[in-house]
Amino acid sequence: MGQRLVQLLDPHPDFEIAALTASEDSAGTSYREAAKWRIDTPIPGHVAEMTVGATEPEAVPDDIDLLFSSLPSSVGEAVEPDFAEAGYVVSSNSSNFRTDPDVPLTIPEVNPDHVDLIDVQREQRGWDGALLKNPNCSTITMVPPLAALEEAFGVERVDVSTLQAVSGAGYSGVTSMEIIDNAIPHIGGEEAKMETESRKLLGEFDGTEVEWLEADVAASCNRIPTLDGHLENVWADLAMDVSAEEAAEAMATYPSADLHSSPDPLIKVFEEPDRPQPRLDRNREDGMQISVGGIQETETGIQFNTLAHNTLRGAAGASILNGELLLEKGYI
Amino acid sequence: MGQRLVQLLDPHPDFEIAALTASEDSAGTSYREAAKWRIDTPIPGHVAEMTVGATEPEAVPDDIDLLFSSLPSSVGEAVEPDFAEAGYVVSSNSSNFRTDPDVPLTIPEVNPDHVDLIDVQREQRGWDGALLKNPNCSTITMVPPLAALEEAFGVERVDVSTLQAVSGAGYSGVTSMEIIDNAIPHIGGEEAKMETESRKLLGEFDGTEVEWLEADVAASCNRIPTLDGHLENVWADLAMDVSAEEAAEAMATYPSADLHSSPDPLIKVFEEPDRPQPRLDRNREDGMQISVGGIQETETGIQFNTLAHNTLRGAAGASILNGELLLEKGYI
Amino acid sequence: MGQRLVQLLDPHPDFEIAALTASEDSAGTSYREAAKWRIDTPIPGHVAEMTVGATEPEAVPDDIDLLFSSLPSSVGEAVEPDFAEAGYVVSSNSSNFRTDPDVPLTIPEVNPDHVDLIDVQREQRGWDGALLKNPNCSTITMVPPLAALEEAFGVERVDVSTLQAVSGAGYSGVTSMEIIDNAIPHIGGEEAKMETESRKLLGEFDGTEVEWLEADVAASCNRIPTLDGHLENVWADLAMDVSAEEAAEAMATYPSADLHSSPDPLIKVFEEPDRPQPRLDRNREDGMQISVGGIQETETGIQFNTLAHNTLRGAAGASILNGELLLEKGYI
Amino acid sequence: MGQRLVQLLDPHPDFEIAALTASEDSAGTSYREAAKWRIDTPIPGHVAEMTVGATEPEAVPDDIDLLFSSLPSSVGEAVEPDFAEAGYVVSSNSSNFRTDPDVPLTIPEVNPDHVDLIDVQREQRGWDGALLKNPNCSTITMVPPLAALEEAFGVERVDVSTLQAVSGAGYSGVTSMEIIDNAIPHIGGEEAKMETESRKLLGEFDGTEVEWLEADVAASCNRIPTLDGHLENVWADLAMDVSAEEAAEAMATYPSADLHSSPDPLIKVFEEPDRPQPRLDRNREDGMQISVGGIQETETGIQFNTLAHNTLRGAAGASILNGELLLEKGYI
Repeated sequence: MGQRLVQLLDPHPDFEIAALTASEDSAGTSYREAAKWRIDTPIPGHVAEMTVGATEPEAVPDDIDLLFSSLPSSVGEAVEPDFAEAGYVVSSNSSNFRTDPDVPLTIPEVNPDHVDLIDVQREQRGWDGALLKNPNCSTITMVPPLAALEEAFGVERVDVSTLQAVSGAGYSGVTSMEIIDNAIPHIGGEEAKMETESRKLLGEFDGTEVEWLEADVAASCNRIPTLDGHLENVWADLAMDVSAEEAAEAMATYPSADLHSSPDPLIKVFEEPDRPQPRLDRNREDGMQISVGGIQETETGIQFNTLAHNTLRGAAGASILNGELLLEKGYI
Repeated sequence: MGQRLVQLLDPHPDFEIAALTASEDSAGTSYREAAKWRIDTPIPGHVAEMTVGATEPEAVPDDIDLLFSSLPSSVGEAVEPDFAEAGYVVSSNSSNFRTDPDVPLTIPEVNPDHVDLIDVQREQRGWDGALLKNPNCSTITMVPPLAALEEAFGVERVDVSTLQAVSGAGYSGVTSMEIIDNAIPHIGGEEAKMETESRKLLGEFDGTEVEWLEADVAASCNRIPTLDGHLENVWADLAMDVSAEEAAEAMATYPSADLHSSPDPLIKVFEEPDRPQPRLDRNREDGMQISVGGIQETETGIQFNTLAHNTLRGAAGASILNGELLLEKGYI
Repeated sequence: MGQRLVQLLDPHPDFEIAALTASEDSAGTSYREAAKWRIDTPIPGHVAEMTVGATEPEAVPDDIDLLFSSLPSSVGEAVEPDFAEAGYVVSSNSSNFRTDPDVPLTIPEVNPDHVDLIDVQREQRGWDGALLKNPNCSTITMVPPLAALEEAFGVERVDVSTLQAVSGAGYSGVTSMEIIDNAIPHIGGEEAKMETESRKLLGEFDGTEVEWLEADVAASCNRIPTLDGHLENVWADLAMDVSAEEAAEAMATYPSADLHSSPDPLIKVFEEPDRPQPRLDRNREDGMQISVGGIQETETGIQFNTLAHNTLRGAAGASILNGELLLEKGYI
Repeated sequence: MGQRLVQLLDPHPDFEIAALTASEDSAGTSYREAAKWRIDTPIPGHVAEMTVGATEPEAVPDDIDLLFSSLPSSVGEAVEPDFAEAGYVVSSNSSNFRTDPDVPLTIPEVNPDHVDLIDVQREQRGWDGALLKNPNCSTITMVPPLAALEEAFGVERVDVSTLQAVSGAGYSGVTSMEIIDNAIPHIGGEEAKMETESRKLLGEFDGTEVEWLEADVAASCNRIPTLDGHLENVWADLAMDVSAEEAAEAMATYPSADLHSSPDPLIKVFEEPDRPQPRLDRNREDGMQISVGGIQETETGIQFNTLAHNTLRGAAGASILNGELLLEKGYI
């Protein structure tokens, strides 16, 4: 995930990598040594030679405008408040605090107004800095089409089944013995994340707090032998009768954001019933587009399939988009 | 599928392979030549040397008690009635006629009484023989646990997502270029089969006709890179409040049948949240057991995962079980 | 393969797609209909709407400068001479005629002078056009490093084992049932191609004929579950004692060609012992670079691993490079 | 590997599991807890409840006749001599000491006489017990056919390329991110093991020492996405001209041993050019048979493909076979 951040930030027009931090084991070494670069584009040369610092406010230059955090959640829980208190603005992919009432959780194309929860956060916590979260990769994959349906028709219930890629568990998260010729119908903590984060993202922010969407969300999460790209089957019960065509139209026309990393359109709607597919569609629009297909009417709403690149749109790209939102909104 | 039938019938205590038929291209050759044996147990020697006949009543010995049919559905549609009219009893895995009102569709442990629809069939069609169907592999995987829930608590709605193995499409059905590092969210006709067959299987037979279960069933079918074993995520809305423990108990104690190929118990209920898994559990009880896990309460019922071996329990083994039922019930 | 040709030719600075041909079944339809576009970049818009013609000289405009042929070898054998006789210059990837004495077989960075065998060909056959071949994908993968060794030290014997990707067999060539959790130690005809083509490529052209390299070449070809990229283990007995460092130096400095699609350097030499790997290295330099690693001394020479993208460097890209060579040499 | 030992020993007619040991972390717990049972047959009930002891001579009952060791090599190096000195006879799969002059390294069907090196070992080291080794899994796969060729014709040189399954690296040894759609042309230390162990196994024991076979052996080792079964391409230069038929005959008639776990024949020779294949052939004869195919003449000898189940014939089964040999020879 850190590597994807470096890969995306290096050519970014608005951001420049000024410092890198890691755990104590790696602090003091070059990034080339600290990271075991494993993605298929080369490690950016000048970044490779930067010295990695410790992950603590004292070790980071004061004039840094924005920190990106992709820490293990237990570490994020420990150090992110320190950074925010020390005045840093943090865009974080770590799963800690995501459902805290005064921590904004945003997908910039879906609920950009929630970012202003930072004002509440600063007041309550006395921070000069701020902490902004993006959701879990499997949540991001389904929320944009659900937002389109919620806005147009009202969403009352969601059943969602995921077919998740191994990269979502990190480089060593899934062994080959576990997953070749196999699928695993369980990813620890993932179902709860999808069920809570989606309702917060689709909720209303009234300037003081986010009222979560009132909907039953039930997730079933599976790991399958794909490298990248989470595919999800979604059933959405809607508040009114809706045809497949109307649902497709609502998704295809759902507006994107005017941010550097936002794709246009946000949601690609396929007519071919066998799309989207992870290997064919995960890289659309630099891996930032949401692909939807298989839209059908059910007795109580709509079912569809949705796909996103889990380490781009679902993690590193999500944090960077949130950074772009912070810039646009004037928080940095 | 034909190979799996031969593999299972060869050692079967009640049946003996007396004749083999194929399309005209293969008729007249030895089974060894006609079949390109591809499963990992050896081809039975005496079967290998049998001459394959044409698939037409005149080409089959009169004293055959039972025919097993795994024909392409268009062929089954054309020739199965000929055989039944000519006096043969046919246990068929082909998808044609499965939802016809006077064609019994059975899983022997679930709805064995439906087999008596044969009497209605014979009266209506004037057949001396009979035609009995088993359901589609993806339907068989979910129906036993649903039957346990229906009997104990009443099932009102089912959403089901499948993660299906490539063997379900036949030896050449899915190319390697399609499925390595990929998943395909569409299997032609599969969703409709699951939605109709399950309601017929779970319906009531009153001696004259089968009244299908009144329930909304919505399926979403996916192909993934596994060789054998269909895994399914199921949400079942129930007619009463049920705990996960009560649901597990209903499934674990759901009775099996007293037939040679029926496993005991019919349903293995796992407590480990990451089971069942295709590679680890598809071969339980010679591939005839249904494995269930991940049972959880939802707002409106229960969600769970279920797994069965698609070419054993879901196809060849299903037809043979139906043959055993026909024998027990005196139809052969 | 045809799709890869279109993908590479569409943005090519020197070539413009003027006509497309196919078998009679597809002639008359649009390319969009005729091709089932399956690669992960979009089908070029104007090409998609072109009408596909028949594969015969009368159906192709007279003013076409260069034809690319990726026909099945039996078809290539039948029609390629017709085109050459009718005056067309053909750059062909089809395996027919590759070892014919008057048909040049070239890798432009390795044996560009062999292209002048066209003069002999024209004289002997009375053709106004010409027929130029590129070798088989598995041959291309090993010949550049062998050429570096041959030039510097002399190659006397080659044992080569291949780990070949499924795309080499075409979209439907390898079924998923054959290759998931498996490897197949046989690819029909492949070993003979490697053994003959490599010796012709490494041979000397004296202006009249190509004298093949005198060396024992023995290949063993395997299909494995990778999508793209052929990896090969090579043992090369050399005419003198050579250290691993000297061999690496010879390969790393082996000159590339000054052609649009030639990479620089031609051969990337890895020091990391676990590289090259198909997924990580097949796309280097737009899939045109040869990657070598694991260079070690043996009692009689050198062993090393080599990798190339089989459908880019090994097929479509090879034909296009040959087209660039024909242009540079003035044959078109 | 420990699990495979338990799986094979539990039903073994000559051996009974009397004690189990593990590292200090697990000592004192039940085997059920200590082992995370991951193979597809159930954990034997009475073994599951046995308490695991520490891996030190004092913690093991005195009346144990035979110890099986599958320790990490650094641990084996530290403790195996302690056990042998304390009077225990140890059959070990660990890679330490395999090439020590007074440590026998055996494949019972190939070089059973080498086991008497124990007498030399006892004299030199003053041990009451003994230490016997089986070779590495990739070595075992090629040595039986090479032994057949050596005995009949003389082997002078071997080039061997391996396509090894992920289970050879242990349950967590290869991550899914490393190997899906990929191959890795390097396995640390594996090439050296194949080059040395094979020459010791094929050497002559004169009652005092083993004179290694004089032959150049060069190995190139690759990891591919298969679960079990190592496939190898072998080129063997022979001391005389030999036809493919003669080589096949020598292998097919090479004698097996009269031991419980030895298959008959030892080597299955396929005529089909595309066999053996890992998934189809690894389980032949309970995973103990060596499968060979693709036998062809080269300029200097023979090339062929060989396959064995790496965790059965290549590890746990190899150690148990050595235990059976120790029993037959009277060492226990």
